[in-house]
Amino acid sequence: METTARLLITCVNDRPGIVATVSNFFYNHGANITALDQHSTDPEGGLFFLRLEFQTPHLDLPKDALARAFDKVVASRFDMDWKISYAEQKKRMFLLVSRQEHALMELLWRWRRGELPAELLGVISNHKDLERSVSEFSVPYYHIPITPETKPQAEEQLLEIVDGNADLLVLARYMQILSPQVVERFPREIINIHHSFLPAFVGADPYQQAYDKGVKLIGATAHYVTEELDQGPIIEQDVQRVSHRNSPRELRALGRDLERRALARAVQWHLEDKIIVHENKTVVFG
Amino acid sequence: METTARLLITCVNDRPGIVATVSNFFYNHGANITALDQHSTDPEGGLFFLRLEFQTPHLDLPKDALARAFDKVVASRFDMDWKISYAEQKKRMFLLVSRQEHALMELLWRWRRGELPAELLGVISNHKDLERSVSEFSVPYYHIPITPETKPQAEEQLLEIVDGNADLLVLARYMQILSPQVVERFPREIINIHHSFLPAFVGADPYQQAYDKGVKLIGATAHYVTEELDQGPIIEQDVQRVSHRNSPRELRALGRDLERRALARAVQWHLEDKIIVHENKTVVFG
Amino acid sequence: METTARLLITCVNDRPGIVATVSNFFYNHGANITALDQHSTDPEGGLFFLRLEFQTPHLDLPKDALARAFDKVVASRFDMDWKISYAEQKKRMFLLVSRQEHALMELLWRWRRGELPAELLGVISNHKDLERSVSEFSVPYYHIPITPETKPQAEEQLLEIVDGNADLLVLARYMQILSPQVVERFPREIINIHHSFLPAFVGADPYQQAYDKGVKLIGATAHYVTEELDQGPIIEQDVQRVSHRNSPRELRALGRDLERRALARAVQWHLEDKIIVHENKTVVFG
Amino acid sequence: METTARLLITCVNDRPGIVATVSNFFYNHGANITALDQHSTDPEGGLFFLRLEFQTPHLDLPKDALARAFDKVVASRFDMDWKISYAEQKKRMFLLVSRQEHALMELLWRWRRGELPAELLGVISNHKDLERSVSEFSVPYYHIPITPETKPQAEEQLLEIVDGNADLLVLARYMQILSPQVVERFPREIINIHHSFLPAFVGADPYQQAYDKGVKLIGATAHYVTEELDQGPIIEQDVQRVSHRNSPRELRALGRDLERRALARAVQWHLEDKIIVHENKTVVFG
Repeated sequence: METTARLLITCVNDRPGIVATVSNFFYNHGANITALDQHSTDPEGGLFFLRLEFQTPHLDLPKDALARAFDKVVASRFDMDWKISYAEQKKRMFLLVSRQEHALMELLWRWRRGELPAELLGVISNHKDLERSVSEFSVPYYHIPITPETKPQAEEQLLEIVDGNADLLVLARYMQILSPQVVERFPREIINIHHSFLPAFVGADPYQQAYDKGVKLIGATAHYVTEELDQGPIIEQDVQRVSHRNSPRELRALGRDLERRALARAVQWHLEDKIIVHENKTVVFG
Repeated sequence: METTARLLITCVNDRPGIVATVSNFFYNHGANITALDQHSTDPEGGLFFLRLEFQTPHLDLPKDALARAFDKVVASRFDMDWKISYAEQKKRMFLLVSRQEHALMELLWRWRRGELPAELLGVISNHKDLERSVSEFSVPYYHIPITPETKPQAEEQLLEIVDGNADLLVLARYMQILSPQVVERFPREIINIHHSFLPAFVGADPYQQAYDKGVKLIGATAHYVTEELDQGPIIEQDVQRVSHRNSPRELRALGRDLERRALARAVQWHLEDKIIVHENKTVVFG
Repeated sequence: METTARLLITCVNDRPGIVATVSNFFYNHGANITALDQHSTDPEGGLFFLRLEFQTPHLDLPKDALARAFDKVVASRFDMDWKISYAEQKKRMFLLVSRQEHALMELLWRWRRGELPAELLGVISNHKDLERSVSEFSVPYYHIPITPETKPQAEEQLLEIVDGNADLLVLARYMQILSPQVVERFPREIINIHHSFLPAFVGADPYQQAYDKGVKLIGATAHYVTEELDQGPIIEQDVQRVSHRNSPRELRALGRDLERRALARAVQWHLEDKIIVHENKTVVFG
Repeated sequence: METTARLLITCVNDRPGIVATVSNFFYNHGANITALDQHSTDPEGGLFFLRLEFQTPHLDLPKDALARAFDKVVASRFDMDWKISYAEQKKRMFLLVSRQEHALMELLWRWRRGELPAELLGVISNHKDLERSVSEFSVPYYHIPITPETKPQAEEQLLEIVDGNADLLVLARYMQILSPQVVERFPREIINIHHSFLPAFVGADPYQQAYDKGVKLIGATAHYVTEELDQGPIIEQDVQRVSHRNSPRELRALGRDLERRALARAVQWHLEDKIIVHENKTVVFG
């Protein structure tokens, strides 16, 4: 729905009256609330999280004025962390990938099918392998090779493309570690897919690790990227039953399906403003 | 939490202002809202469902007065179907069972462990088989034998025990069909477990039906009982992967696990006032 | 592995000595058995199913002679239904599709990635919509429009392309019902994906049916096509949890993921000779 | 079936002819093979695992003679690790528990229902809490209190009860760590349930750890006990989706269901001789 808007709120000190104040504010300004989901961690004084979806056609203020009014009348009173997003202003997204195509193609298809409400500004890769596959989608392909020596310049190139132009970077099996200089420019705006059920099997080749350990389920984890490798807030996880019959090669094939699913869901939820990050955890509204 | 109360609302004609009016009402009467979940089926004029959890310590009115005020000030204005429940007033529950113990024992154990917040007034059975197992839980066991001839009198006996004393009847593999006279006294207050993934395999011995059909998943369905057999509103369903190796006997054993799980969840959600029934469907708040 | 061969056996009258006779035969002819999976439905006189995987490098007979010898020495003695397949002789596959691309693209991508060991001879569609998407895979695209009036001629065209050239037809959301004349030429060689958890929701728009019924899980079913619509032997089923929040449109989107998964698995198992059909049920070896 | 016997084989050096030799042997001695499942890790020279189920009524040798013959004629030739078990000789089982009853009761019910084919010789606990609950099942209850000071004597007491009398010890939430002296007497005969998805969350209070990490799935792991804590071969794992709404207390409740399920399956598979342990991994036949 083009007329949908969403509000996300975090208060670190829950108090009576927040829901009433917020819903009054929107009612008084002509917004029709179509969904509201609120969660408090404690009956008194805990964390307060809220997601509210409203319709804009009868709003009595333009967006900027609404934001200013909300800040002044509501947010400052309850010391809120908050953000309003409008479905008509699609988030600008870049996809980063190395050589493996499965996660990238999953996102491209879903995007083309209209399941991922984003403006897709480009695919960025340190390899040329997937250029032809991407061309079918009429999306720019940026090839930025990276070697240990050229990494600083390569990241400069990357930032030139994305800085100020992106609301979301998706690492769809991008096998380079982003430096803190890049990560800090996109706080909670970089999503990575890790090919294991974190926190198990941190590090390289988790499917081999899973095989060696003889686990009966393998997993994949989509998470926000922070400066600490594989430790960012978890958005989504999925698992699949495996057995002694599955070779490491088959585990990798089964894992690809998990990666595609977990990453696609995490990206969709981010684009639909369903995620609040608080400290190192996420609240994902259903 | 003994101080928790819950409000469930259905409006068949969604309009702007409901959430604001409801949350204001509770705020003004000293209730602290700790969870609110609202769902509208359409942006304008659809169905409106709301579940609200609030804390009672600072309420400025006794329960009866609060209900009257809510009805007058809020509910009548928006033409609401509504109900407030208080955690401290536990629902009164009876369990009905025939010969198979698995679903019954699951509920008894969860109840003793404190996972099912109900006052358990008794177990009613048309057989004596499970009397000893129930005795360990210090719960009355009523034995009401039923034959086709004695069914009317048997149901009279049943109603003498439960009528006016029960907020919930759970059919935990009770193999008798309740007559409309019983069902209509407990609208949306009787939960049954059906041993298949409804609407597949309606009727007798669904595991044999599943075996004959060669399905790759078997299921169980917990639903409210209505006058139409196996057609009441579905509360919860669960499935389990099976294969050609599983005999009908093994399917039944696997199915018992599904039945226990699906029924226990449905009962818990009912007791926690998480379910709204509208026409023949349920809204189950997460 | 190019050197892998597989034997599938059904005996309707299980007797002692089958496994010993079969394994002796292959051992004596230089085949190394790398996997054997045998299932009997009863200790005496039931159905007997066997799948055996062997390596061919040290075989002492060419394929034809081996088959003749097996038939004479083993199969005729135990009245077997049997078939030997060689991995190096890839099955010839056609994909049939109408307008929805998700199931088709899933198969094309897996095929290109090497996960589906088949020779892909073409995509056949009653629409032109997907021609461009298929062209990227260098696979012939046959456009055969169908109207109620032209159906007989259209099926003639179809048969000209596939008859004698295909070991497997996959209906990847092909919205036309194949006539018995087509179906009978490919017994157990046509796989369809039905967008519900069969036997629930047979017929049109099962996701709308699921929405109307208020089920808590939706499903998809991959099955062999027989002359009776949606009643062929089930190969694979998958389900996904849904809730009252999901509109019919969202159920369809979630269902697409299920369809892709269930169909891809069924096709892969068929290509790897893991499926035996007996009467209207399948045995799928793990 | 009382007439069922099972053979488990491991060969560290797979060679042609093993299956033929084994199946011949049993055929020649009058055994009817009703299931055979064989898995090799490599086409040549890998590990070879086999499980064979046969019926005993027409055996031409008594059990001891059969074992000697098998050892001489078959096992020694292929350097096998092997074991034949007879369903009529039920395994002798002890259950060890501390204070939490859920895993224990799950096993007791299933055992009484005939789902766990074992001779249950007793429940051993370092607490008295569950004595009454166990008494209903007519199973001896041994109370062996343990303090850091009395641990050696307590384990002596334990060994007096179980040593030479047990084929399986199940730690059904037994919160004491068994000393190496006990563990080494029961190699691959002690099953523990760990309340997390190993190898994640090793150590104390894994549900709190899972909550702090914000994972979206919690798990449970049933494994054989070895001298290294929580590192023994994994038999079974199960997971359950959770969300930010679940408090650590609720995670523990959800986890109890996982623990019951994973442990019950692991115990059942062990009793049905479906598990081979090789190095630190298990092969679990389906």
